[in-house]
Amino acid sequence: MHFIIRGQKMKKLILVRHGESEWNKLNLFTGWTNVDLSEKGVQEALEAGKSLKENGYKPEICFTSYLKRAIKTLNNILDVMDMDWLPVYKSWRLNEKSYGQLQGLNKVDMAKKYGEEQVLKWRRCFDVQPPALAMDDPKSPRQDPRYAEMTDDQIPLTESLKDTIARLMPYYKDVILKAFANHDEVMVVAHGNSLRGIVKELKGMSEDEIIKFNIPTAIPYIFEFDDNMKLQKDFFLGDPEEIAKKMQSVANQGKAK
Amino acid sequence: MHFIIRGQKMKKLILVRHGESEWNKLNLFTGWTNVDLSEKGVQEALEAGKSLKENGYKPEICFTSYLKRAIKTLNNILDVMDMDWLPVYKSWRLNEKSYGQLQGLNKVDMAKKYGEEQVLKWRRCFDVQPPALAMDDPKSPRQDPRYAEMTDDQIPLTESLKDTIARLMPYYKDVILKAFANHDEVMVVAHGNSLRGIVKELKGMSEDEIIKFNIPTAIPYIFEFDDNMKLQKDFFLGDPEEIAKKMQSVANQGKAK
Repeated sequence: MHFIIRGQKMKKLILVRHGESEWNKLNLFTGWTNVDLSEKGVQEALEAGKSLKENGYKPEICFTSYLKRAIKTLNNILDVMDMDWLPVYKSWRLNEKSYGQLQGLNKVDMAKKYGEEQVLKWRRCFDVQPPALAMDDPKSPRQDPRYAEMTDDQIPLTESLKDTIARLMPYYKDVILKAFANHDEVMVVAHGNSLRGIVKELKGMSEDEIIKFNIPTAIPYIFEFDDNMKLQKDFFLGDPEEIAKKMQSVANQGKAK
Repeated sequence: MHFIIRGQKMKKLILVRHGESEWNKLNLFTGWTNVDLSEKGVQEALEAGKSLKENGYKPEICFTSYLKRAIKTLNNILDVMDMDWLPVYKSWRLNEKSYGQLQGLNKVDMAKKYGEEQVLKWRRCFDVQPPALAMDDPKSPRQDPRYAEMTDDQIPLTESLKDTIARLMPYYKDVILKAFANHDEVMVVAHGNSLRGIVKELKGMSEDEIIKFNIPTAIPYIFEFDDNMKLQKDFFLGDPEEIAKKMQSVANQGKAK
């Protein structure tokens, strides 16, 4: 039970990174490629839902990206929680960082070809962009009807983490945070790098700190606030050992084995 | 290809009744009980999505109820269509007719106990209500947190088809129809009786006509409109023989075999 202040419940933000996708499994750069969850990813999502339910979380509104690995992670979480009636809002601003031309290519192959250091820069430098797609490349979001409403200058042909955070922030501030005016618990199911943007903002992390911070897949990451939306504490919901293992496994993906 | 009028596409409304639920299978009165899809129901939903995709439908916005058999039918349709990024709005006003105390009871048992005629009245008379639940009955929607926002007089303890249509209409007129101001194709995935309300309104059916009209499960029902939203034609998308069989199977449910 939480201590009740003026009849209100404590405000909570629940962040969840999508479960394993078919391409995580193959170790390919994914970015805006619309890859499905793997069977393991579905199981991870169901586990996340079970864990949220068992710990008494009751999100009232949910946000996710335009990418099916996040949407289906959310759908599976809500199904287990018996909460699939909740309002869900989707935005491309919550999409993963675009990896430009790297999308569809193997992380280890790229490390062998360009060196681990270069791949790590593409993956983890705050303001380094991978090589850009052409606007008319079949892999460009401009060619995908789901992004028809975006203007050309909103279409990411490649992105650094800085770019990802820049296009995320208007949605985070104007929509997600404002949902707390009417709701106590808000859930966001998204991607490693879009969630990094939120975590950086909430914890006041430096660029250096956030690039080293790996969010484990499908582990609910809870932020608790006071009535003035000042962060009180944040923690991962689950077994610390498993979480450490998952964080390390994400960090290792770009290594030429 | 459709003939293009003033650069606009033809306006289309796609109605889909959810696939078979666990309780359809058991022949129980379901109403507002939140029963899951059966495996067959999931397959039906996937077929509906495939059929919409193959026939070139491109819904731009979707509406469904607060009940998981409709939500999951929609999720499966959108998954097959690769359109799960679409905006989805949910409302209790699209829920199935409440069967009050009958919910959870067997249709054939009830026919044996009260006679086929009485059961047919409960199921198919325009303004006959089954026996009502008490507000504090565990089966009452008042006891379910998902309906917390409803006022007591909005909570249906039982409903005739007339009642169902009355609570549906504000949402249909103020939200669903208004979506055509910004969209060409609108999809509604709901229930036998809430969809009857929409069909009655669109086709100007009498009370008598609509109670005899059985909507087959998970067969897309297409309505095409001119630019002034005047109905041009309506048809079921699929094999006419299979559709006739499905309509008959729904009509037979209340018979004491």
